Amino acid sequence: MGEMPSGKITLGRYMWERIHQIGVDTIFGVPGDFNLQFLDSLFHIDGLKWTGNQNELNAAYAADGYARVKGVPGCFVTTHGVGELSALNGIAGSMSEQVKIIHVVGQTTRAMQKNHMMIHHSIGNKPDHQIYNKASAGLRYAAAELWDIETAPAEIDRVIRECFLKSGPVYIFLPLDLSSEQVDASLLDKPINTEPDVNKAAQEKAVKAITDALQEAKRPTVLVDAWTQRFAAVQEAAALVRKLNVPFFSANMGKGVVDESEEMYVGVWNGEVSTPGLKEVAKAADLVITLGYIPCDTNAAGFSRKISDSTTIHINPHDVVVLGTTYPNTSIKSLLAALTSALPSTPTHTIPKPTLPRPRTPLDHAATHLTQSFLWPAIENFLRAGDCIVGETGTSNFGLCDITFPPRTRFITQIYYGSIGYATAATLGVECARLELSSSHSSAEESGRTVLITGDGSMALTIQEIGTMIREKHKSVIFVINNAGYTVERLIWGARQPYNDIVPTSYAHLLPLYHHPAPESSFHRVTTKEELTAVLAKKELQSPEHLQLVELVLDKLDTSWRLGTQLAWRSEEHRKYLTDEGFVDTYGGWGLEGSAGGDVKWS
Amino acid sequence: MGEMPSGKITLGRYMWERIHQIGVDTIFGVPGDFNLQFLDSLFHIDGLKWTGNQNELNAAYAADGYARVKGVPGCFVTTHGVGELSALNGIAGSMSEQVKIIHVVGQTTRAMQKNHMMIHHSIGNKPDHQIYNKASAGLRYAAAELWDIETAPAEIDRVIRECFLKSGPVYIFLPLDLSSEQVDASLLDKPINTEPDVNKAAQEKAVKAITDALQEAKRPTVLVDAWTQRFAAVQEAAALVRKLNVPFFSANMGKGVVDESEEMYVGVWNGEVSTPGLKEVAKAADLVITLGYIPCDTNAAGFSRKISDSTTIHINPHDVVVLGTTYPNTSIKSLLAALTSALPSTPTHTIPKPTLPRPRTPLDHAATHLTQSFLWPAIENFLRAGDCIVGETGTSNFGLCDITFPPRTRFITQIYYGSIGYATAATLGVECARLELSSSHSSAEESGRTVLITGDGSMALTIQEIGTMIREKHKSVIFVINNAGYTVERLIWGARQPYNDIVPTSYAHLLPLYHHPAPESSFHRVTTKEELTAVLAKKELQSPEHLQLVELVLDKLDTSWRLGTQLAWRSEEHRKYLTDEGFVDTYGGWGLEGSAGGDVKWS
Repeated sequence: MGEMPSGKITLGRYMWERIHQIGVDTIFGVPGDFNLQFLDSLFHIDGLKWTGNQNELNAAYAADGYARVKGVPGCFVTTHGVGELSALNGIAGSMSEQVKIIHVVGQTTRAMQKNHMMIHHSIGNKPDHQIYNKASAGLRYAAAELWDIETAPAEIDRVIRECFLKSGPVYIFLPLDLSSEQVDASLLDKPINTEPDVNKAAQEKAVKAITDALQEAKRPTVLVDAWTQRFAAVQEAAALVRKLNVPFFSANMGKGVVDESEEMYVGVWNGEVSTPGLKEVAKAADLVITLGYIPCDTNAAGFSRKISDSTTIHINPHDVVVLGTTYPNTSIKSLLAALTSALPSTPTHTIPKPTLPRPRTPLDHAATHLTQSFLWPAIENFLRAGDCIVGETGTSNFGLCDITFPPRTRFITQIYYGSIGYATAATLGVECARLELSSSHSSAEESGRTVLITGDGSMALTIQEIGTMIREKHKSVIFVINNAGYTVERLIWGARQPYNDIVPTSYAHLLPLYHHPAPESSFHRVTTKEELTAVLAKKELQSPEHLQLVELVLDKLDTSWRLGTQLAWRSEEHRKYLTDEGFVDTYGGWGLEGSAGGDVKWS
Repeated sequence: MGEMPSGKITLGRYMWERIHQIGVDTIFGVPGDFNLQFLDSLFHIDGLKWTGNQNELNAAYAADGYARVKGVPGCFVTTHGVGELSALNGIAGSMSEQVKIIHVVGQTTRAMQKNHMMIHHSIGNKPDHQIYNKASAGLRYAAAELWDIETAPAEIDRVIRECFLKSGPVYIFLPLDLSSEQVDASLLDKPINTEPDVNKAAQEKAVKAITDALQEAKRPTVLVDAWTQRFAAVQEAAALVRKLNVPFFSANMGKGVVDESEEMYVGVWNGEVSTPGLKEVAKAADLVITLGYIPCDTNAAGFSRKISDSTTIHINPHDVVVLGTTYPNTSIKSLLAALTSALPSTPTHTIPKPTLPRPRTPLDHAATHLTQSFLWPAIENFLRAGDCIVGETGTSNFGLCDITFPPRTRFITQIYYGSIGYATAATLGVECARLELSSSHSSAEESGRTVLITGDGSMALTIQEIGTMIREKHKSVIFVINNAGYTVERLIWGARQPYNDIVPTSYAHLLPLYHHPAPESSFHRVTTKEELTAVLAKKELQSPEHLQLVELVLDKLDTSWRLGTQLAWRSEEHRKYLTDEGFVDTYGGWGLEGSAGGDVKWS
């Protein structure tokens, strides 16, 4: 086991070797009778590990979480039809959020396919076995539809390269019989080139246009967003903002991409729904440089971050747009490095970092029971450098976007795609990747923890993946907001409609269901502010020896300032709905009192 | 509430009224911000109920189970992208197994779609909001892609009719803004015609050809299969076999379609892997009439039920094939009725019902611990008239196919599509439908129970739907085989490979996790034969007042005679694999001793 193969190897082995070569150490998935045989060869490769999931959608989510943290593709395996389709929503999420995924599908044999045999998992009397492949065609960047042993290795290499270049899902369809055919092991000698080709001329033109625009600007700023991270340009982005030395922001999705502890970091610029003073600071800029920008509704309070072409430079993954003019064929990582090099060593602009006014006081600040207004600052204090924070779509993400993260934080979330259930299953992959990366760190403190924050409605969709975490002896800290249903939906429509209720869950039984080794000391139910403070300070959460589960009991109509304000901002009619349904009065804020504490100070 | 609407109603209301008119009383699904508003109108309709699911795949499975039992479409609702894709594997299963499904998808508004807005759940910078619709295009029979209020009601009516005619999934894509536009309530006055048009001339020709062939035959027989049930021809099939009065069989998928208590019923004709003597009886026939036949691998022990065109009449849903000649444009329900009418009132053939030899004795008959050879006969004794039996793909179905069912049994299973996880979530829908149908029965005894038999590996995929059953106060009896992994896969490949292990689960915690009202008296763990006998006799299982969960602890290499024999039948090489891996010796049977108890007796 573990030796570099020589002579002839099976195509299955070849595929796993290639996937391992690009930095993948864990394969997720669910076995099925059209992938079993080629799963075997995975166990012959040193450093490559199988982590089976409880179902295929969870496998896709786990692979996505893994990819985001490790910066290489996440890889998972399913079986023909039943497996691959179950994972499709996860794949679409990776497509939407530009996450590198290799989805290996074990297909029926070529003879079964050619003869249109009515093999189980098929449809019809003369089944087209490729019908499931067609279903995912619009939701991936490339597919190796393997059929011929002569071309199969090159096809595998091609889609792995595409996965890096496009940063999104690719498929490998592997007929079971083909997987055991032989190829030359020497094909493995030349590594797959995963770097984009850089068009130097195009890059130089774009850099010139950017530096010219910067020279004209009096008050430039930077807005960091998530594609920067997906296209491996995090360090380059950090170097750029340091050299520019101007106040800069992140978008919701870009939180933590560049450390929020950086000196000139102002905060999350979330359009009209930003913390007091922040949007005024942003609007003072006469030039906005976006890095890997995602202008979707949920990334800026319903398209309310208005930035005009005439005052904006977009540095996108594959092109740059300078004040409305597009410079195509660039590559963000390389371009940011070149841009930073091209800047003078002393910053050309001297703009002080502004001081934001103190936030207003929550109306419920005196309550003793746990409230959302108390929860999020407490979570902020709980987080520490190096933590991987997994935030679920819904109440959780709105709360998390109000928190300032410590250094080296990674924020894993689906703010654009927004598929509930994602966060719980992704947490498995996040922790696998974090452990692989942190093996080089000297202490657990330095390498941080994986912290999931989700809601009862969302966790229900993928709850069984907690079992996989326990089997894998993960020590993640899981917070689940128990507020008796889909609170984010109650705010949108039907506050008291039964469709926003969920199945009541007694979380004390979740850890023992999956044979957790210390369920009583690892489960914490919190109903008051005092209890939360005590629980967050516990040794079990600070340096967990087992997976921890914290149930946060919150009122079903309570929510964070940011979510309430965003929805109230939409229309007068919606403000009336929120008030009529018994949410606190939202006009001019979300349950706040007192003034905003004065103006922005530019000292 | 509940009044027949008049004047103008919303399109959402119109849709729900139409769906209710065709006999649907329960709507499954998961709410999302592109369906919330039109879910409201569902609550204005008397007799229409919302049953929310824990996730969308489970909703699709539940709707499928509901449809199979109630004989009308199952209907479920999802939201744009994230929801509809999660359900796609369930839809493909309904397509494969010809189950009537209406999948309502709440889409983004038309303005969002026209302007390619980057609304959450989308993909790309200029998203095509119809990309998810395209993914399911090959996996449905029809779709109402609603856009225009003038044509929308007719489109809804059209796909509902198609759902009945084709017996499979159809979609209704409903943009959120369109759902609140108004239509005339009077459009509801004329019911949707769900009956197929019968081509009398084509039918007469086919009937003539069948009766001619019957006259020529000396030993005709009938093989009942599942499409008979899907196309609503169960009563017609029963009438036919009674009037013919010849020995008849079912296929695995056709079990229970015609009562197995019928006098001339011989058993399950499963090709080479049939109970002793049975295939000899089948092969003695010189004419086989199949009803709604499905010639897939899993429906006849790997295509081993060889029947020749020259001795077969296939009565299919939409055509008839008599000794190789096709008679198109027929409709199975109407055709069977016409055929039965055309037969003389006294049977033309007098063939005695044969007596099959006694089965051989299992090698492990003296064991005290629970074995598969003991389990299935015990389950047979446990079942009673009117029960709905939900069988999971894998070990469970192979065991169940060896059981003879009591009268009025319904067998719900995916033997062709074979997506594990199906059975658990389908059980929710089965019980909803059974309760709706049984409200006319005078006693619980008469209306039976819903009984699920699944495995630990399969239940893991959809385990959270047990929570929905508990919330709905269902009284189903759930058996879960705990044999530490995917036993059916161990038999196929990798008996001891880690990919066939699953997450260990402590089932005692499953009922309390979901606030079951009497978890201790409703959970039963069985490790010995004696315990099984005692548990099956309990009042809690005979007349359940709450949902019951029975954990059956079985050896991970134990399996039923039928599964072991089928796999051993495949090849000498596979027999060697099974023996080498420590499964009992399979050559010539599955752990059996003694002789087969003599020959078939035609008395």
